[in-house]
Amino acid sequence: MLILVFRNNIPKTMSGNSFTKINGDFKHKDILSLSQFSTSDLTLLFKHIPTMKVLAANAKPSELLAGNIVTLLFYEPSSRTFGSFGAAVKQLGGQTIDIINPQQFSSVAKGENLEDTIRVFEAYGDAIVIRHPEVGTAQRAANIAQFVPVLNAGDGNGEHPTQALLDLYTIYEKFNRLDNLTCVFAGDPLNSRTIHSLMDGLSLYNGNTIYLLSPKELQLSQNDITKFTKKGLKLHIINNGKDMPKTADVWYWTRVQKERFTDLKAYDKVKDSFYLTKELVSQFAGKDTIFMDPLPRVGKIDMLVDEDPRSEYLRSQIRNGMYVRMALMALVLGKIK
Amino acid sequence: MLILVFRNNIPKTMSGNSFTKINGDFKHKDILSLSQFSTSDLTLLFKHIPTMKVLAANAKPSELLAGNIVTLLFYEPSSRTFGSFGAAVKQLGGQTIDIINPQQFSSVAKGENLEDTIRVFEAYGDAIVIRHPEVGTAQRAANIAQFVPVLNAGDGNGEHPTQALLDLYTIYEKFNRLDNLTCVFAGDPLNSRTIHSLMDGLSLYNGNTIYLLSPKELQLSQNDITKFTKKGLKLHIINNGKDMPKTADVWYWTRVQKERFTDLKAYDKVKDSFYLTKELVSQFAGKDTIFMDPLPRVGKIDMLVDEDPRSEYLRSQIRNGMYVRMALMALVLGKIK
Amino acid sequence: MLILVFRNNIPKTMSGNSFTKINGDFKHKDILSLSQFSTSDLTLLFKHIPTMKVLAANAKPSELLAGNIVTLLFYEPSSRTFGSFGAAVKQLGGQTIDIINPQQFSSVAKGENLEDTIRVFEAYGDAIVIRHPEVGTAQRAANIAQFVPVLNAGDGNGEHPTQALLDLYTIYEKFNRLDNLTCVFAGDPLNSRTIHSLMDGLSLYNGNTIYLLSPKELQLSQNDITKFTKKGLKLHIINNGKDMPKTADVWYWTRVQKERFTDLKAYDKVKDSFYLTKELVSQFAGKDTIFMDPLPRVGKIDMLVDEDPRSEYLRSQIRNGMYVRMALMALVLGKIK
Repeated sequence: MLILVFRNNIPKTMSGNSFTKINGDFKHKDILSLSQFSTSDLTLLFKHIPTMKVLAANAKPSELLAGNIVTLLFYEPSSRTFGSFGAAVKQLGGQTIDIINPQQFSSVAKGENLEDTIRVFEAYGDAIVIRHPEVGTAQRAANIAQFVPVLNAGDGNGEHPTQALLDLYTIYEKFNRLDNLTCVFAGDPLNSRTIHSLMDGLSLYNGNTIYLLSPKELQLSQNDITKFTKKGLKLHIINNGKDMPKTADVWYWTRVQKERFTDLKAYDKVKDSFYLTKELVSQFAGKDTIFMDPLPRVGKIDMLVDEDPRSEYLRSQIRNGMYVRMALMALVLGKIK
Repeated sequence: MLILVFRNNIPKTMSGNSFTKINGDFKHKDILSLSQFSTSDLTLLFKHIPTMKVLAANAKPSELLAGNIVTLLFYEPSSRTFGSFGAAVKQLGGQTIDIINPQQFSSVAKGENLEDTIRVFEAYGDAIVIRHPEVGTAQRAANIAQFVPVLNAGDGNGEHPTQALLDLYTIYEKFNRLDNLTCVFAGDPLNSRTIHSLMDGLSLYNGNTIYLLSPKELQLSQNDITKFTKKGLKLHIINNGKDMPKTADVWYWTRVQKERFTDLKAYDKVKDSFYLTKELVSQFAGKDTIFMDPLPRVGKIDMLVDEDPRSEYLRSQIRNGMYVRMALMALVLGKIK
Repeated sequence: MLILVFRNNIPKTMSGNSFTKINGDFKHKDILSLSQFSTSDLTLLFKHIPTMKVLAANAKPSELLAGNIVTLLFYEPSSRTFGSFGAAVKQLGGQTIDIINPQQFSSVAKGENLEDTIRVFEAYGDAIVIRHPEVGTAQRAANIAQFVPVLNAGDGNGEHPTQALLDLYTIYEKFNRLDNLTCVFAGDPLNSRTIHSLMDGLSLYNGNTIYLLSPKELQLSQNDITKFTKKGLKLHIINNGKDMPKTADVWYWTRVQKERFTDLKAYDKVKDSFYLTKELVSQFAGKDTIFMDPLPRVGKIDMLVDEDPRSEYLRSQIRNGMYVRMALMALVLGKIK
């Protein structure tokens, strides 16, 4: 079902060159970056999650998105994000048009530009979810789409706002707050999109302390240290698991990528220091510390940790991904407020 | 939901070696070629389009195809046609089974022939939409399918009837007639499937004049000139943009393909003469001339022309593609008459 | 719609290292192997098939699986099995999440293990259908999935239980019994997964006689001869079509694969002896003999045999595949009993 504005040819509010703030109203907005969200926008989104859980678990199917069609335009396959968005739409009774690797499709292969592809797909449905390997592509797509909202499902080293939202919600759900938390973000604070997004999110709230555990080579840049400190985060740069606090609420693990090192000896030396093991857990984790990971967990978390009840990466993080996307879809398509 | 004839094992009317005329009754007919359509069949189809627009825009989801399953069997990916057929089915509440590149699927890779593949898929749903790189494949598929209609979504240099129908409808919608029109078909009248289909369609009506603008190498063949002239079209062969009429209702742009030229110098010489620019528009377009293109627009239309309100290629042509396919599906599956 | 047990976090009955017997109750059970089925389980499943036929043929769409989401996780594309499971879910009003070749998706490509992939997808829907080239993978997946049932859609040389079930149902539907039958299983009794499954199934019933027609090189192993004879099947090993009985109820054709032969001359010598032709039919088939084939038929059955009314491979075998999967899905998801 095309949304009414489409029928009437009333264009959506365009994003322009900067991200449009949500400002309490999700309807027909592009969702491109966590920076669009204020704390009250997050509160509004999170308020709807419990309802989404009920809708997903109900025997009676939800019809919240009945008649709605969402195009999943994935220039780079990602089974988890693709499945999560698809499930979100279908759990609410909507349908998807699945376009995976359109660059292998004839028209794009013949040289069709992103602009034309977006204009084509905005004619077919109510929203476009785009995944693309290049930074800024979601924003470009949003500027092209005149009638339907565009949701960023990850654009390279750019943004992946629904990942950040599900991470924040997972923390919020556990501790019932997003302030006054102590977190360990491990792995690659220099490059990790996920860590940057989480710090963006947590810096909206007061009293958060972040331990950034990484090899020296992958420490947060001095610029970012200054920026996030100004925003109110208390940062502790540590290079050794032994310096981890015993009081952390959240451990969040990201990958130390071999390709970031020019000196492979340096990589070999550090790689095992940033691996989440049962031993690390028994030495440093608190009773209520939760362990998170954006997945895939390759090279980061020992499978022996999976059974620990504090491991959330294969449990609530995954499910919350679907619930957050359900709520977001329903909000953006104007089905809830 | 399998259609009733399937349950009762009453075979559909088979196409045989020639295309079955629609003759006022779409139900359970294969849709393989524009040549199946008379002017009254086109009128019948077009009559339903406004309803389809309303169904697509309605807040209440359509259930016209509820319970219907359509297989999209694409031996050659085409994101636009695939998305358009998928959206058409889903806008009406139906579902699709998406089979892209079955030749990479195990059974076809093991050497399964088209015949067996079609018989398998006709058991699963109510219709098969087939796209294939080889001429005549849709007809072959239609001859195999005993119980469900087959719709041709393009078979190589053969036919692509829904493209022709959406083009004709786009013109019809704009001018409220398909007779007494003046059109410029530019690019490659010798080879373009789209131009041939449009001339087939327009030759059903009286008083149409076609300017065929192309390099000499890609002029319409003498045979075709004779054929279409006999059918009643007034043809003007022109090789230079300067000879374009200022009174055309429709400009339709097709691609001058490098690979058609044995002499690349000849190609280099002509390629830029057949490019739709703002300058060409300002010199030759009338107030109500519409600009069309089957897309992708690569090498044909300058993006600066996109914003011209007379450009229909990224606007009504795309949307009409979905509406025409919605109406066609509903007619063929016997849901409307 | 997530099933209620998921909401309540009550884990399903786990399969462990041996297959859980159905024992009259399909609800939330993994379907991994024909060996889970007793004769009364088969009777129970088959009892529902006529209803499934009606549901598929009804003008009114079925809502038996409305709100249900089934993930089709195909590590190896198989158009027929994929289409059949997808159609089964959709014919009953459910939806699917289609993941084809997840090993090409980023997270699996980055090295995500099967365990994590399964845990991710079990969070998105109500069941996982898995196809995988390696033996035992469906069982592994079932042991990982804690809340949703896993259905084996073929794991290499392992099991493909829904194929066996549709084969047995096709025989049952025709003869109204599964005992006291005479069958010819031709091709490769040594290696064919399908023949082994069929013999497993038929050995649950009394009085069945099996002629195993193959080149000497592909005869059933002595171990298996002993095993199936103990289970009550009367076996006749034959190496020549001339030794076929004229009284068989069922002919089931499997492929003689070149790659099984170390001596290619041996292959060339025998390959044509195990080909189903009109001549073989006219010499040995009875009036009511049915011809079956798991497809693709490449190198096994002459297309001239297709029109013989006794050929079931492109007729009831295909359709029964969908009906059997519909009934199985509805049983496993607890929608029928």
